Amino acid sequence: MATEANSVAHPTLIEVDPFIPADQQKGIHNRWHPDIPAFATVKPGQTFKIQCVDWTGAQIGNNDTSDDIKNVDLTKVHNLSGPIAVEGAEPGDCLVVDILDINVFDKMPWGYTGIFELENGGGLFAREFNSKAAKAIWDLNGVYATSRHIPGVRFAGVTHPGLIGTAPSAELLATWNKREGELISLHATSIPPVAYGPNPTGAYVGQNLDPKVMEKIVREGARTIPGREHGGNCDIKNLSKGSRCYFPVFVKGANLSVGDLHFSQGDGEMSFCGAIEMAGIITFSTSIIKGGVEKFALKQPIFLPSPIDPLYSSKLVFEGIGVDIHGDGKQYNMDASVAYKQAALNAIAYLMKIGYTREQAYLLLSAAPVESHVGAIVDSPNACVTLAIPTGIFDHDILPNPNGFPKRNFGQCAIRSDGAV
Amino acid sequence: MATEANSVAHPTLIEVDPFIPADQQKGIHNRWHPDIPAFATVKPGQTFKIQCVDWTGAQIGNNDTSDDIKNVDLTKVHNLSGPIAVEGAEPGDCLVVDILDINVFDKMPWGYTGIFELENGGGLFAREFNSKAAKAIWDLNGVYATSRHIPGVRFAGVTHPGLIGTAPSAELLATWNKREGELISLHATSIPPVAYGPNPTGAYVGQNLDPKVMEKIVREGARTIPGREHGGNCDIKNLSKGSRCYFPVFVKGANLSVGDLHFSQGDGEMSFCGAIEMAGIITFSTSIIKGGVEKFALKQPIFLPSPIDPLYSSKLVFEGIGVDIHGDGKQYNMDASVAYKQAALNAIAYLMKIGYTREQAYLLLSAAPVESHVGAIVDSPNACVTLAIPTGIFDHDILPNPNGFPKRNFGQCAIRSDGAV
Amino acid sequence: MATEANSVAHPTLIEVDPFIPADQQKGIHNRWHPDIPAFATVKPGQTFKIQCVDWTGAQIGNNDTSDDIKNVDLTKVHNLSGPIAVEGAEPGDCLVVDILDINVFDKMPWGYTGIFELENGGGLFAREFNSKAAKAIWDLNGVYATSRHIPGVRFAGVTHPGLIGTAPSAELLATWNKREGELISLHATSIPPVAYGPNPTGAYVGQNLDPKVMEKIVREGARTIPGREHGGNCDIKNLSKGSRCYFPVFVKGANLSVGDLHFSQGDGEMSFCGAIEMAGIITFSTSIIKGGVEKFALKQPIFLPSPIDPLYSSKLVFEGIGVDIHGDGKQYNMDASVAYKQAALNAIAYLMKIGYTREQAYLLLSAAPVESHVGAIVDSPNACVTLAIPTGIFDHDILPNPNGFPKRNFGQCAIRSDGAV
Amino acid sequence: MATEANSVAHPTLIEVDPFIPADQQKGIHNRWHPDIPAFATVKPGQTFKIQCVDWTGAQIGNNDTSDDIKNVDLTKVHNLSGPIAVEGAEPGDCLVVDILDINVFDKMPWGYTGIFELENGGGLFAREFNSKAAKAIWDLNGVYATSRHIPGVRFAGVTHPGLIGTAPSAELLATWNKREGELISLHATSIPPVAYGPNPTGAYVGQNLDPKVMEKIVREGARTIPGREHGGNCDIKNLSKGSRCYFPVFVKGANLSVGDLHFSQGDGEMSFCGAIEMAGIITFSTSIIKGGVEKFALKQPIFLPSPIDPLYSSKLVFEGIGVDIHGDGKQYNMDASVAYKQAALNAIAYLMKIGYTREQAYLLLSAAPVESHVGAIVDSPNACVTLAIPTGIFDHDILPNPNGFPKRNFGQCAIRSDGAV
Repeated sequence: MATEANSVAHPTLIEVDPFIPADQQKGIHNRWHPDIPAFATVKPGQTFKIQCVDWTGAQIGNNDTSDDIKNVDLTKVHNLSGPIAVEGAEPGDCLVVDILDINVFDKMPWGYTGIFELENGGGLFAREFNSKAAKAIWDLNGVYATSRHIPGVRFAGVTHPGLIGTAPSAELLATWNKREGELISLHATSIPPVAYGPNPTGAYVGQNLDPKVMEKIVREGARTIPGREHGGNCDIKNLSKGSRCYFPVFVKGANLSVGDLHFSQGDGEMSFCGAIEMAGIITFSTSIIKGGVEKFALKQPIFLPSPIDPLYSSKLVFEGIGVDIHGDGKQYNMDASVAYKQAALNAIAYLMKIGYTREQAYLLLSAAPVESHVGAIVDSPNACVTLAIPTGIFDHDILPNPNGFPKRNFGQCAIRSDGAV
Repeated sequence: MATEANSVAHPTLIEVDPFIPADQQKGIHNRWHPDIPAFATVKPGQTFKIQCVDWTGAQIGNNDTSDDIKNVDLTKVHNLSGPIAVEGAEPGDCLVVDILDINVFDKMPWGYTGIFELENGGGLFAREFNSKAAKAIWDLNGVYATSRHIPGVRFAGVTHPGLIGTAPSAELLATWNKREGELISLHATSIPPVAYGPNPTGAYVGQNLDPKVMEKIVREGARTIPGREHGGNCDIKNLSKGSRCYFPVFVKGANLSVGDLHFSQGDGEMSFCGAIEMAGIITFSTSIIKGGVEKFALKQPIFLPSPIDPLYSSKLVFEGIGVDIHGDGKQYNMDASVAYKQAALNAIAYLMKIGYTREQAYLLLSAAPVESHVGAIVDSPNACVTLAIPTGIFDHDILPNPNGFPKRNFGQCAIRSDGAV
Repeated sequence: MATEANSVAHPTLIEVDPFIPADQQKGIHNRWHPDIPAFATVKPGQTFKIQCVDWTGAQIGNNDTSDDIKNVDLTKVHNLSGPIAVEGAEPGDCLVVDILDINVFDKMPWGYTGIFELENGGGLFAREFNSKAAKAIWDLNGVYATSRHIPGVRFAGVTHPGLIGTAPSAELLATWNKREGELISLHATSIPPVAYGPNPTGAYVGQNLDPKVMEKIVREGARTIPGREHGGNCDIKNLSKGSRCYFPVFVKGANLSVGDLHFSQGDGEMSFCGAIEMAGIITFSTSIIKGGVEKFALKQPIFLPSPIDPLYSSKLVFEGIGVDIHGDGKQYNMDASVAYKQAALNAIAYLMKIGYTREQAYLLLSAAPVESHVGAIVDSPNACVTLAIPTGIFDHDILPNPNGFPKRNFGQCAIRSDGAV
Repeated sequence: MATEANSVAHPTLIEVDPFIPADQQKGIHNRWHPDIPAFATVKPGQTFKIQCVDWTGAQIGNNDTSDDIKNVDLTKVHNLSGPIAVEGAEPGDCLVVDILDINVFDKMPWGYTGIFELENGGGLFAREFNSKAAKAIWDLNGVYATSRHIPGVRFAGVTHPGLIGTAPSAELLATWNKREGELISLHATSIPPVAYGPNPTGAYVGQNLDPKVMEKIVREGARTIPGREHGGNCDIKNLSKGSRCYFPVFVKGANLSVGDLHFSQGDGEMSFCGAIEMAGIITFSTSIIKGGVEKFALKQPIFLPSPIDPLYSSKLVFEGIGVDIHGDGKQYNMDASVAYKQAALNAIAYLMKIGYTREQAYLLLSAAPVESHVGAIVDSPNACVTLAIPTGIFDHDILPNPNGFPKRNFGQCAIRSDGAV
């Protein structure tokens, strides 16, 4: 018969509490550096679990104002769990990581999506909208998310780690700091900043380290904001539970870290804190392909998507080209980023015709399983990018209606307590 | 019983011959201009067919060298069939277009994909690869394409018009010419050019027009290369047969034109002539939503994709970020175009490990139903873009093999008769 | 350049006229017999086309009464095109058939779905409904079907041959005739009949044959109604264009025949003439696997479905069990056929709540891409079968509405000129 | 910030221990009867969790023999958690149930699939195979299952309750017992039995009840084996997490019960204990549609499938017809159950060519996300049923190989300790 003796739970290698600030907990770090020691070690083939705080480390609450978003301390992100060393992994190998599952904590069945202030974090339209903090709280009911702040929608999560990567070597870290430092120098006064250099303020490694090692890490450690050669904050929604990922290995043990779990996200994650941010538990197993970097020309991770990614076959698709049609009409030169923005602005304008506020539309397109494809990238001078909204996530019909849309009022998302939007 | 009397074929409004140069045929034009008169008129609700030459107008042959690609005359593209006026359509309306079917001519069951010369047409990697002309001929066997020039693959077509749009108003045309002219001025010596201004050389309208009207059209007419507010050369692979499209109307009658039919294309169409280019017959029906531009905030077309787009659920996905990792390592500032290129270069490098040549890989990624998503567009400074290759299009296993790939030789695509690659 | 010289059309091996009675045309036959000679021969690897009349051979017209259905001559069905011999195929081999495309004749862009009379053809509910002839004419607009007789729906075709198979050997034919003859004997008075034995009346082979051979064929030839070991009238909707099929070979040359083309069909094809019946052109290529019957334990055909089958992800699913809940409440013993019927009756009842007539619902569920799964086949005494209606084929919302459904009137399908239903 | 105060877990209404026999636990019952009182009550709209033992109530262990399967006590199944009353539900209403999630217990990350003995439980091929007990243990690694007893496969779970239903009214219960009793009488000596009448032996209700009530329940209570009008043991794999179900209500409160959780199952669940049986936690929310039975003609449950059901687009499909080709060649009369069996036997024979044993193939087709469609149900005398195996669940290529399959040995599943198979 079934007994405890013949049933073995998968071990949890890092335990955290989602209600305690991240910098008071073990097994968490928020910078990339080769000298951060492995917090735990696994054998290839072993299934194991890792617990993660949300990316801000409990700074955001389940409530109806966005003041916490306004005042978020971004020197303390992203809070990652790890590193996990894999026995036998060496530089030049390929680390195969199966993302077997991602779950919320039973005690915290909610997440959030935020629009950050222009001066604190920004987002894709921070300047266009002169963004003030706004927020949607999502109730996570099993596989579905709904929000009291964005009525009329429900969707299945394409749950994934926003941030997952192997540790950089010293050389790779130096390359990052150099190239990003040069960019920062070129745009020194940009708001929001174009990039974030190493910053000891807020830097954290939840291990007992030699002070000299710690000092080196916080001084040199790369910020976690962008994705890079090792993976990192790629925010790829389809790197979801059920997917198999292949990472290049840069240090002995590979030293995998993970965090910034997302219950759902749209392609682009446009509002910056645009996914449904959550704390939770991720389940992994790993294997190693010796010499995989050379075998597969592996300059960056590759992956196989999950067979259980949500499938909504009916979609409404918006086009965008590399001309600032919603702004000053400027003609760009083969710029897919501008084209993405135009497609997104077209979608926001459409959702506003249905009755959503601009902030609700912005948050919704960030968090829902929206798909954005690069349509054409060779038709000079205009890149073309599409953005597809699944129609099945709405409990009302959003298709173009020959009579126009009936007036509907969906209220507003959570905004600042001073009422500014 | 079934009889000819109770069976009515859908009418063909424009007939062409795919073996005759486009500029010798009626109902074809290759510039955008509001003064090009409607070649035919339809009532809303009517199903009708339009025949189209391939985009070059029969310049490319079914053979095994790429000399015709090398010497293609690009002043004469794209050859569009139309315009078709829809009764009752007025500026400000939304023209609903159902793309009901797209078929090859029985007498021409093949298409081609080309890499253009750096000096004549270019392509996404024209400079990186110092591109010489290359080509793959595709045999179109019903719903599938195969190529003697790229062995080992077979895929179902996501057949679509690369180019479809309504006619611009005079104001809109002026806006295009102004903004693109300014960009050209800024990059006057770029090779390939950053954009193409109006050019009477090669301009063609296959109608008997007053010489003054004709002169105005060829002098002012916008080139067809980029997608714009009216649709145009968007090269969106999912604007495929079975899709329903909503176009803004800028002139009385809407004046729809279509051409550049593609049997298949990957997201991005990276080699420029990257789709499987074909001549063929497209079937439409239309309807009008009065005042649709205002009702739906319709600055650009929107569409509903087709339920019969090919479905390959298993994919191998490559990541790319906004750093020129395959080149000089330059750090870009939130540049999705660069990120797309890196993902594509990662994929090309992978396919070369399997045994394809660089040119074969470049052509294959252009033509096959590859998907490219904008992963993240807010993680400064790196945009992240993915490119997914469906594994089911290969007759061999392309997944990462722990033993590396066996050496295979897939030959080479069609190249120049002087052997240059 | 593109020329006729470098473009070769796929050859058409059998040409028919969809407006001429089948028994006046060459290359058609309507019985299975090993002695029917090959009408044409192909080499493995060759792409070729076969034209087919509709299964009745032009007996049904595009009009608004069902009198032609009432009076259809079923001794003359199904009209198949063939046989096609494949060079090198021998008994015991596996014939691989790629169904590359299926198209309507340009001159006949319509099809029909029929409910047959209880006394002439029947159908799944012939007795329950005491069926009178009824019919829906479908307009085939490219990839879509719509019907003036069933308003409010439009769907993409999962186009397939209802009937395709290799020729039986003499031994296999004898087995069929023996086993079916025994069943007929057991149920000699059943209306409609439980099976159809060989019948010279109406039998036809459109070739000049020795009268003795012809006499043998029409005397012994198996009727085409059921599917059997060689394929035959399996009416599997997913054996559609784009699929690859593996047939056992029973005679030298394999002798493939095909007909009963369906533009679309629901799983089960419940009204008997339930698919959208059409005339048209099918494109094939073939190959041979020597000894494939033994290699793959091939007692019946197997196949790989097409990547372009229509995808409607949202479905409303009805359950049925092996109890005649809609009738006398009888408890059956693990009967999946009864369970299918109950699921179908539940679906019909639901569609009638929306406003369709029983006949419209019956025809719609027969013709649309409805899916029926065997849920459970082991839970004694009740088999459980589901029937799923794609919601996206309707232009109105059919999901359960808390307020019930608004009264709507969709008219009626084509019925008999005497008004009987 | 995130705090326990602003985070509220979904309540668990029934708690069980998967390692304790079911008949020692509260909130469990294993018969259907209107007099079983609600164990808990919920308000419409509330999200809540229910824990379930496996269907046998801990009788089967994680080990490598099938002796526990051989000796399983089937008078004690299925162990259901419930009933749960929903406030306001009355007979004639429709109970809407959202299956929001299903998870294994952390401490029991495994499940099993069994072949039952001919004399104890049976299964679809119990007589054909003269079945001896056999078993596969599945390791549940997040969304995936693998088995040491069936190497070479891994698949994502389509996780669902095999058994879910509302309580019957007294009238409905009487109908069940009458009709099934009559069937039993007709086949009194059948092995395995054709149905199971009420049986006090093993009957259990985990509540403190008046002995008279208890006696009535165990005397009259319907067995849980078949699906019926209220749902019940329908074993529909797509009634999975993420689906929305509509049940008819027969008693005040609706009294929903659930159990027999399946990590995965193939259509048909052919080996009887053919799913991956598991203990676990199911998350629900409910709502009520007043008068829904009348509004929707709701004789049996209907449902909307989940957007996260696993998607494997590549499949190998087997056909079966209503003739016992694998047995004595008997011709049946429109029998979809026989057709299903033939399709399954064709698939088993194919998998044996690849190297699996008959028992492994039987278990695998029962447990993996295999799809079985009713192809045709009107082509007298042969029903046609298909069975589709997703090719992507194998780590090796199972498509027909022109060279035949290389000899492979996949060992054997768990069998009896006496070695009998």
